[in-house]
Amino acid sequence: MKFQISRPSLTEAVSQVSKAVSTKTTVPILTGIKVTVDEEGLWLTGSNSDLTIQVCIPIRQDDKEQVKVERIGSVVLPGRIFSEIVRKLPGDEVDWVVDERWKTTLRSGQAQFELKGLDPEEYPRIPSFHEDRMFSLPADLLKSMIRQTGFAVSTSEARGVLTGVLWQLEGGNLTFVATDSHRLSRRQAEVEGPEDLKVENVVVPGKSMSELGKILADRTGWVDVILADNQILIRADHLLFFSRLLDGAYPDTNRVIPKGGKTEIRVSTKEILQSVDRAALISRDGRDNVIKWTVKEEGLVQVQSTAQDVGSVLEEVSAQVKGEEISLSFNAQYMLDALRAVDSDEIKILLTGTMTPFVIQPADREDALHLIVPIRTR
Amino acid sequence: MKFQISRPSLTEAVSQVSKAVSTKTTVPILTGIKVTVDEEGLWLTGSNSDLTIQVCIPIRQDDKEQVKVERIGSVVLPGRIFSEIVRKLPGDEVDWVVDERWKTTLRSGQAQFELKGLDPEEYPRIPSFHEDRMFSLPADLLKSMIRQTGFAVSTSEARGVLTGVLWQLEGGNLTFVATDSHRLSRRQAEVEGPEDLKVENVVVPGKSMSELGKILADRTGWVDVILADNQILIRADHLLFFSRLLDGAYPDTNRVIPKGGKTEIRVSTKEILQSVDRAALISRDGRDNVIKWTVKEEGLVQVQSTAQDVGSVLEEVSAQVKGEEISLSFNAQYMLDALRAVDSDEIKILLTGTMTPFVIQPADREDALHLIVPIRTR
Repeated sequence: MKFQISRPSLTEAVSQVSKAVSTKTTVPILTGIKVTVDEEGLWLTGSNSDLTIQVCIPIRQDDKEQVKVERIGSVVLPGRIFSEIVRKLPGDEVDWVVDERWKTTLRSGQAQFELKGLDPEEYPRIPSFHEDRMFSLPADLLKSMIRQTGFAVSTSEARGVLTGVLWQLEGGNLTFVATDSHRLSRRQAEVEGPEDLKVENVVVPGKSMSELGKILADRTGWVDVILADNQILIRADHLLFFSRLLDGAYPDTNRVIPKGGKTEIRVSTKEILQSVDRAALISRDGRDNVIKWTVKEEGLVQVQSTAQDVGSVLEEVSAQVKGEEISLSFNAQYMLDALRAVDSDEIKILLTGTMTPFVIQPADREDALHLIVPIRTR
Repeated sequence: MKFQISRPSLTEAVSQVSKAVSTKTTVPILTGIKVTVDEEGLWLTGSNSDLTIQVCIPIRQDDKEQVKVERIGSVVLPGRIFSEIVRKLPGDEVDWVVDERWKTTLRSGQAQFELKGLDPEEYPRIPSFHEDRMFSLPADLLKSMIRQTGFAVSTSEARGVLTGVLWQLEGGNLTFVATDSHRLSRRQAEVEGPEDLKVENVVVPGKSMSELGKILADRTGWVDVILADNQILIRADHLLFFSRLLDGAYPDTNRVIPKGGKTEIRVSTKEILQSVDRAALISRDGRDNVIKWTVKEEGLVQVQSTAQDVGSVLEEVSAQVKGEEISLSFNAQYMLDALRAVDSDEIKILLTGTMTPFVIQPADREDALHLIVPIRTR
């Protein structure tokens, strides 16, 4: 195995696959990065068995030669130190030689590193996918959908399937749902794909969702989503992101979402967010992190919290109020998460009672909602 | 106690004193911030018994009224939550009332907080200082001196006095020395003060030095240094920084610094730093974090490191070499710390033997030096 590669392209690719590389040494080979050079270009793979990231640096891109292949081959290099070395190499091009015992020599500028490599045959195979179960959407849309639901997954392993985000597709309409049974977030969007493609009970681990959001951070353009029996593949240009799926049946959440309400509020997202954020300074020192809202007919929401040994807070936010006066208490963090996920300037809140779930939505759209179950207080 | 204060001034002052506030609850009152309002203005004090930071917001500054005092007084407020609240208050002015049982009401914009305060009489007194043992220097100079020596203090409590930085003053010349007995850093500078003022064996804890560096970060202008028996006070405008001093006699370090050498090297600070930084990627995985230099007569330094299970690195840096060829090994981190502390483009290194301490200095000045003791290798 022998080739030369542009260092900036290599640095970028290594930093992407590093996000998947295992830091646990339970499967030692997974603490490495697999490097393969073939007629298409250089392939880098990182994996922690839950998720796998693969990046290709093609031989030529934008009419520039990026890889000069002299002899194809494959090797696994220790992930952490390899990515640190690549980031700090002095030259613009890296000269790369691997001998038959996987000893790897990297030369760049005046620096020369030798690394002990491992046999690539020991590295797990990537699952194969058929492209008949595929749909596409803009990367920016996928990122918003992840950001607006991923925080609501359960962190408890007790009901494993709730630690993931449910993906549903029907009639070209993709829905993400996440819930930890105290709150729920849902986001819907139109996607491009075969009209008859139906996806049910596909549950992607919350950790994979947040890594996917990070790795797409700087990406624009469209991404493909391809489904296999127990894996999902997201493909964006030269990047492949594989995640395993969670086992188990995801509960039907449609019936918990109230259709009407006793009281409807419209309020500035920023004003109510800042007010809850301040009240949370007090509630965090209390037992349950509880904030109380009192909705007044004259058009305001009183935001209150008291922590016995610390003190209390009270403020008023002006709002449009329709329906009955009501007061209810909830977990401050759930409310902050939901309000921060809203991109619209104004939200509407539908309250159904002191102890029944309430719904927060952007005032100007129906495709996103957050539901919170109130807390009983003294 | 009743007053109004400009919120931006309050936020700035609170963030400064917060750096000293204790996070340990061994002395509960020290987890608080003491607030006093009097005829001069508002005083804030934070302390963790090793160091104390006091900031004054004067009644008027730059012809702007900052504090409107209605009733003077004093209170201690819980530090963490108080500083978070101040940072997030919505208005430009804070209305502040403390009742006779220390209950504190803060009003700003539409927000109203009530906090349980504590009796200020329980807060430790600030030591008093006589201004006869005082000298002055520019804040920027003091910051450089801290940055160029502080890293070399010992982290081991075994010889407590070495966990601090020695301050010496004689004939208007201030010297800082820090050593952990494997390496030493020394910096000297002229200061303004009484000609006959002599300071000996004043040892400031390393932690206080680094906090002082941080709190002076944005400051320019001059600072005063005032000495008491077991305390030091640094005064900059409306900021007072007190630190306790370490007990014990600091060792005489002058005799360990070699005056001449067998080999003198001159080399680009940046090139040798980057080269050592890369070699450290390998050495960190080795047992002793050791890097080896081989100095060649023809004008180069070979930088090498090998870690048994990982691999090795070799590079060459061109240098001006005078004297004998020599090779020696040292702790990579000590070298990185020393090289990063040098502001000059070029350094000179004076080598005296494979096993004797060597000296690194900026090529263009004599007032700073770093000494490293080599490591014996196989």
